[in-house]
Amino acid sequence: MQRFALIGAGFIGSLHARNLFRHPGVSLEVIADIDADKAVSLAKQYQTRPASIDEVFASDVDAVLIASSTATHAEYVERAANAGKAIYCEKPIDLSTQRAEQAVAAVREAKVPFMIGFNRRFDESHAALKEAMMAGEIGRVELVQMTCRSQATPPMEYIKTSGGQMHDQAIHFFDLLCWLTNDEPVEIHVFGGALSDQKIGQLGDVDTSIITLRMASGALAQIDCTRRTGYGYDERIELFGSEGMAESRRQPSRHLSVYRGKHERRDGLDDDWLARIETSFSNGLNAFVRGLEGEDVSYPNVTSALRAQSIADAAARSLQIGERVAIAGQIT
Amino acid sequence: MQRFALIGAGFIGSLHARNLFRHPGVSLEVIADIDADKAVSLAKQYQTRPASIDEVFASDVDAVLIASSTATHAEYVERAANAGKAIYCEKPIDLSTQRAEQAVAAVREAKVPFMIGFNRRFDESHAALKEAMMAGEIGRVELVQMTCRSQATPPMEYIKTSGGQMHDQAIHFFDLLCWLTNDEPVEIHVFGGALSDQKIGQLGDVDTSIITLRMASGALAQIDCTRRTGYGYDERIELFGSEGMAESRRQPSRHLSVYRGKHERRDGLDDDWLARIETSFSNGLNAFVRGLEGEDVSYPNVTSALRAQSIADAAARSLQIGERVAIAGQIT
Amino acid sequence: MQRFALIGAGFIGSLHARNLFRHPGVSLEVIADIDADKAVSLAKQYQTRPASIDEVFASDVDAVLIASSTATHAEYVERAANAGKAIYCEKPIDLSTQRAEQAVAAVREAKVPFMIGFNRRFDESHAALKEAMMAGEIGRVELVQMTCRSQATPPMEYIKTSGGQMHDQAIHFFDLLCWLTNDEPVEIHVFGGALSDQKIGQLGDVDTSIITLRMASGALAQIDCTRRTGYGYDERIELFGSEGMAESRRQPSRHLSVYRGKHERRDGLDDDWLARIETSFSNGLNAFVRGLEGEDVSYPNVTSALRAQSIADAAARSLQIGERVAIAGQIT
Amino acid sequence: MQRFALIGAGFIGSLHARNLFRHPGVSLEVIADIDADKAVSLAKQYQTRPASIDEVFASDVDAVLIASSTATHAEYVERAANAGKAIYCEKPIDLSTQRAEQAVAAVREAKVPFMIGFNRRFDESHAALKEAMMAGEIGRVELVQMTCRSQATPPMEYIKTSGGQMHDQAIHFFDLLCWLTNDEPVEIHVFGGALSDQKIGQLGDVDTSIITLRMASGALAQIDCTRRTGYGYDERIELFGSEGMAESRRQPSRHLSVYRGKHERRDGLDDDWLARIETSFSNGLNAFVRGLEGEDVSYPNVTSALRAQSIADAAARSLQIGERVAIAGQIT
Repeated sequence: MQRFALIGAGFIGSLHARNLFRHPGVSLEVIADIDADKAVSLAKQYQTRPASIDEVFASDVDAVLIASSTATHAEYVERAANAGKAIYCEKPIDLSTQRAEQAVAAVREAKVPFMIGFNRRFDESHAALKEAMMAGEIGRVELVQMTCRSQATPPMEYIKTSGGQMHDQAIHFFDLLCWLTNDEPVEIHVFGGALSDQKIGQLGDVDTSIITLRMASGALAQIDCTRRTGYGYDERIELFGSEGMAESRRQPSRHLSVYRGKHERRDGLDDDWLARIETSFSNGLNAFVRGLEGEDVSYPNVTSALRAQSIADAAARSLQIGERVAIAGQIT
Repeated sequence: MQRFALIGAGFIGSLHARNLFRHPGVSLEVIADIDADKAVSLAKQYQTRPASIDEVFASDVDAVLIASSTATHAEYVERAANAGKAIYCEKPIDLSTQRAEQAVAAVREAKVPFMIGFNRRFDESHAALKEAMMAGEIGRVELVQMTCRSQATPPMEYIKTSGGQMHDQAIHFFDLLCWLTNDEPVEIHVFGGALSDQKIGQLGDVDTSIITLRMASGALAQIDCTRRTGYGYDERIELFGSEGMAESRRQPSRHLSVYRGKHERRDGLDDDWLARIETSFSNGLNAFVRGLEGEDVSYPNVTSALRAQSIADAAARSLQIGERVAIAGQIT
Repeated sequence: MQRFALIGAGFIGSLHARNLFRHPGVSLEVIADIDADKAVSLAKQYQTRPASIDEVFASDVDAVLIASSTATHAEYVERAANAGKAIYCEKPIDLSTQRAEQAVAAVREAKVPFMIGFNRRFDESHAALKEAMMAGEIGRVELVQMTCRSQATPPMEYIKTSGGQMHDQAIHFFDLLCWLTNDEPVEIHVFGGALSDQKIGQLGDVDTSIITLRMASGALAQIDCTRRTGYGYDERIELFGSEGMAESRRQPSRHLSVYRGKHERRDGLDDDWLARIETSFSNGLNAFVRGLEGEDVSYPNVTSALRAQSIADAAARSLQIGERVAIAGQIT
Repeated sequence: MQRFALIGAGFIGSLHARNLFRHPGVSLEVIADIDADKAVSLAKQYQTRPASIDEVFASDVDAVLIASSTATHAEYVERAANAGKAIYCEKPIDLSTQRAEQAVAAVREAKVPFMIGFNRRFDESHAALKEAMMAGEIGRVELVQMTCRSQATPPMEYIKTSGGQMHDQAIHFFDLLCWLTNDEPVEIHVFGGALSDQKIGQLGDVDTSIITLRMASGALAQIDCTRRTGYGYDERIELFGSEGMAESRRQPSRHLSVYRGKHERRDGLDDDWLARIETSFSNGLNAFVRGLEGEDVSYPNVTSALRAQSIADAAARSLQIGERVAIAGQIT
């Protein structure tokens, strides 16, 4: 039984609370939040006790799940590492790569298990894609195509502190790209614009972008990101290789077809990203727990976190200067 | 070059005229119809000459394609056989099985090539289904499911002389069933009703039916037929076997998807049966011509015609008496 | 908070235990089983206490979930009804319709809530099918097509006490048929055989069947059932109506496609029925709990249970005598 | 009846010969080729007469279809224009934009009808995509995704004279992009490499590329091109807009599914581009003929030809200098 503390009782924290509560191998010992009332309420719902942030690090839990606001992640990571706790941290460690590197140094120093919340790796269809690639079914990867389209533009308040579309949204796909291909990008070019909402442009951000990358192997990759669709949450990945192509397809919300007149009407995509990737959260938690229990499990770690962030930095720079940008050497 | 005469310049005759004209190995020598004006007009369109019915059988053509009204088929088959012509005959040979058997006797006596117009065998996806079965991909066939739904109820005038839903519509699927399974039915049961139009019921016919059959091998089969849908022409076949299942799927008219709101809207099915199976007509003609040129080609012959008709006879009897009916021994 | 007792700690009981444990509005108070060790073990896993059967009916729980062996259902239903408990009972109430009717009388007398475990009604895509029908999207129902194919033949020991394919497997689809169409069958015909395993035939049972029905409205229906496939669990439903057709499609286990050479390889169906309909169990429990909490929720009740059973009785009789069978008047 | 001459009796010329022969509104008067034997043979096959190139321009035909080798297009276009013939010209007019502009000047001077062979516009599913966009179903176009993957690398001899991947292969999609969006690109960036065959790289060309573009409206577009796949010919287009998304999907070669074990195996894509877009050739010819007969028909004209070529020029330059490139103002 792994004893967990949860920091953060907001939207994502609540999602993690439910998964921790339901996990047969986890005991959710304590929930903390800067807003004590939120902690009390969530703790009650999941039959555990609320606590202060300080109490978490002083407690005897085995692991800390950090789901608080982004600005607090680096500090909590360092405190958890110093306290010898295993860490599951929502992305990113920090919007500043330099600050993130400091926190990573503490984790490495403490040699504690660390997972960054790139949970899409645990989506069953994406995982099947990687299995097909690893089994050699498509030969050598030559081209990657990724679609990442959120259902609705977040509030401007969120956009302002999100780090921008590259660091907030595309970053998950930078991690997927490296993981799916066992490769890393060396060059990047981004076209972007504020097409859905001019206010996003006034903030210096974009809501629609096409990112292209050249990988170290010579393979090429493409990611298209939008902040809102008229048709739910849209995520899709293709790996094209020398011998075939594998696709993690769009997924319908249900499997109803209605034929009338000249058309077939199907259920469309999930309403939002949560519905689409909800199980990847519990799958990811499960991988982390199995690792704590001694299994040889792979999950996104500090290196994954820094690597994806460095790609996002380069993407943001390409947007800014309007040119192709080289990506610094391998993160280790 | 095979020299053809076409008898029948109506709807189906025109379709065959176009295919004969376009076929690189065919010379369409003459077109005849009881209505001489129709023959003249169609002959002009396809740059050939009109003629009387009598002239056809006196001519030196190699083959006669009979696409006239059903009541004339048996006579023309016999005259063509007696004249030593190869025969492609639209189904059925005659609504009366006894009369059909007489015509078949003439064909057998004359030893001329004979193809009955069960052209669905030449649909590429149905043919792929048979290939999969023959290759052992699904093991031993145990269950067959066939859907056969026409887009619109034909005029009552047509219904009256059609022989009824079993002989007019289901008969194609009786042939497909035997051909796809290399088997024959021994028992049949039909539920039917006039659900779309009471006038069909007043004619003693049905427009909606579910036919079930037990095959000699023990396999079971199901065919559902309707005379009109609200969504185009619907044809679909499943072969379920001891090791797998193969399906000739519904086919969309085009490959457009539109995602809006909660739905994906796809192009539906073809508007009518002609659009769906048009290529199977030219494929079927092609098989017949290749046979005439000496290739070892399989196509539905007199035995196929009589066998499907005897199943239709049993189906009609089951409808009439409301009971399961045994099907007489193998047609040879 | 609804206080539940669970009777039955076997395969299905364990599934219900997990759903009861996870349900935010349920307190799982006690688990009983004739095999006390099983009860102890399952109770430990879900942090509750084991008890004897007698203790269950003497306890102060609000509801009893009966997931014990079929032969015990009727007795437990009666004891639960007499104790004033709400009842969720796995199907069937009893293999004997007469015995089932006795138990139903006790439930009606006690006026306690009762749900029979026809949980497929709570499958989201099937529910969407009914919504489409109720919204008039397909017009008046004229034809129903249902496919129900289990992945693997159960052990002969199971087959022997299962009541046969009609009562064990097809019965779920008899309920779905009535529920989806708001209609009831008046005539039934079944073709069946033991195609996958002769031993099933020696037991007087079948493993492959095609059931056809005429409904009171005149609509026709077809259900095909097999005990094993070579490709996982296969469930599919079509409602054909006067204005359109709605389909609850086959569902892939994952959404991976691999294109190589001349083929696209997709993930196939779920490995077994549990994977396919697992969420319908928790959805069904949720409906039952919401009903207990006073919501106006529809779920399959005693009438549904008796009605499906009477159809199964008629189906079994048709198999036995090889004839079409009339189904007795409306169950109320 | 439109009287046509065909110049070019090679692979593409033969394809056009068949379509001209079959077209009910066309009389194929003469076929010419630099290789007289080829002209004789093809003319015999389609029951017309062979001729020299000079005879074509001296003849009284209404229209000339130019399907000879690329290097001869510009000269034949000019001679046909000077002779007052309507012109259907395979793409490109010339690999040199300057030379193409000269030929276009002759066409404009002569005011003869001119269609360039961007026949993918006449693919029924792509045309449906444009209809959906024009009908406002997806709102304002914001993102375009195009996949263009040939089945097999052409011979090096072909590659050498093809003008390179941008001018030979991507150019069709540059035309589709402008046509589908009613927009034009203003900036372009290309990543490319010789991943399938190093010899292509030695020729200074690429076989794998991802092209991204910013359109005048601000919309972004992406095209990925490869010269060979392990799975047939792959063409797919998405238009993403402010209110929805429309997709011209991948098209299976047939509609067979085989379910075995854990997989569904479907027929994959067409073997080659010809099988995929063959009907768009006859549809395109049909549009041209209808235009000649006075109908108000839209097809790709001299402006389309020059516009697509200028985009290809910019794409090739981006590949060469490794930078984003601006595209000169609107072609008129």
